Amino acid sequence: MTMSPTSTNVVWHHATVTRQRREQLNGHASAMLWFTGLSASGKSTLAHAVEESLHQQGCRTYVLDGDNVRHGLNSNLGFSPEDRTENLRRIGEVGKLMVDAGIITLAAFISPYQKERERVRSLFPHGDFIEIYCNASINVCEQRDPKGMYQKARKGLIKDFTGISAPYEVPANPELEVDTGSNTLEDSVDRVIQLLARRGLIAAGDTNREK
Amino acid sequence: MTMSPTSTNVVWHHATVTRQRREQLNGHASAMLWFTGLSASGKSTLAHAVEESLHQQGCRTYVLDGDNVRHGLNSNLGFSPEDRTENLRRIGEVGKLMVDAGIITLAAFISPYQKERERVRSLFPHGDFIEIYCNASINVCEQRDPKGMYQKARKGLIKDFTGISAPYEVPANPELEVDTGSNTLEDSVDRVIQLLARRGLIAAGDTNREK
Repeated sequence: MTMSPTSTNVVWHHATVTRQRREQLNGHASAMLWFTGLSASGKSTLAHAVEESLHQQGCRTYVLDGDNVRHGLNSNLGFSPEDRTENLRRIGEVGKLMVDAGIITLAAFISPYQKERERVRSLFPHGDFIEIYCNASINVCEQRDPKGMYQKARKGLIKDFTGISAPYEVPANPELEVDTGSNTLEDSVDRVIQLLARRGLIAAGDTNREK
Repeated sequence: MTMSPTSTNVVWHHATVTRQRREQLNGHASAMLWFTGLSASGKSTLAHAVEESLHQQGCRTYVLDGDNVRHGLNSNLGFSPEDRTENLRRIGEVGKLMVDAGIITLAAFISPYQKERERVRSLFPHGDFIEIYCNASINVCEQRDPKGMYQKARKGLIKDFTGISAPYEVPANPELEVDTGSNTLEDSVDRVIQLLARRGLIAAGDTNREK
């Protein structure tokens, strides 16, 4: 320990471990990767596959998605417009803490409204928020329909279902657009990884940093 | 990449990067360290000094405290009993995500009620929540009074101030009690580090893991 105030009256609670030092320890920078797109467009699949690739390169990662957020932090939120907004706000704020902690944080949420996505983006310093539009047509998504949600929406059993009875606003200016309707998963992962390398978050072509 | 489903119809979004794999990559286990005690008892100072020590040992760490939580994630909460409960609940849930992300997470909050602390503890698997009671007498804390809060509380300008006009319930069975009233900061840090080593979270006596 280099610092050791000996007087017990000293008031001293500065955070000496900064994001910069964490990034240095990790050997890569942190950022918030925000995957947006229709239900069944492949957001979560892509986010988890990118995470796997990053982890194999020795990067510190975490995926925020419905599974770990809706049952925990946001378990007291419903699906009203206000609650949806608060849901994304909290996810953004948690992402901010995780990015500060040095983690490449991946969030996979439909997040259909431009304004809501911009609100989350505004929480971050410029360059930290990377919007990735998972572009698969409604037809492709509806054919996939892994949980039968589109079928239920078509029958009117689910209200305000994005793409059927509620709008999806295509990102105006995302950092990356991936054709998750026809690309292979591997190709989509590569595009994200290449973006991160171009932006200097991770080393380019470094595929074996894990010891 | 070892996994590469080529069909675009495959629904696949398992989380393959687990806490266990993250801990393996990090070279240490994760946990939630919960520092509780009176205002000015030294919770935040101790948490940050422990973080510094852990970081120098190459550990991944993050401190949650009023500074980064009240202005962000919990900026829409006030100080009513309900809001205080929700404040701690959210901190607990964020800690849970961070621990899952492989981070040794340190939280420094007065958290005066046993029931509230137990509620946060119950969010975690057994052994993941480590309660550290920062024990400094009310006299010592009031003498320190770095922000003049005790003085204001004595004048009745702050209502429900812990230790003056609201109770502090001493932890019944904390994992560690540190005398932050008379110990030096260095001694207090050592006690926490030793506890983490005894519990196998970090390597014992390993002081130079950072490369």
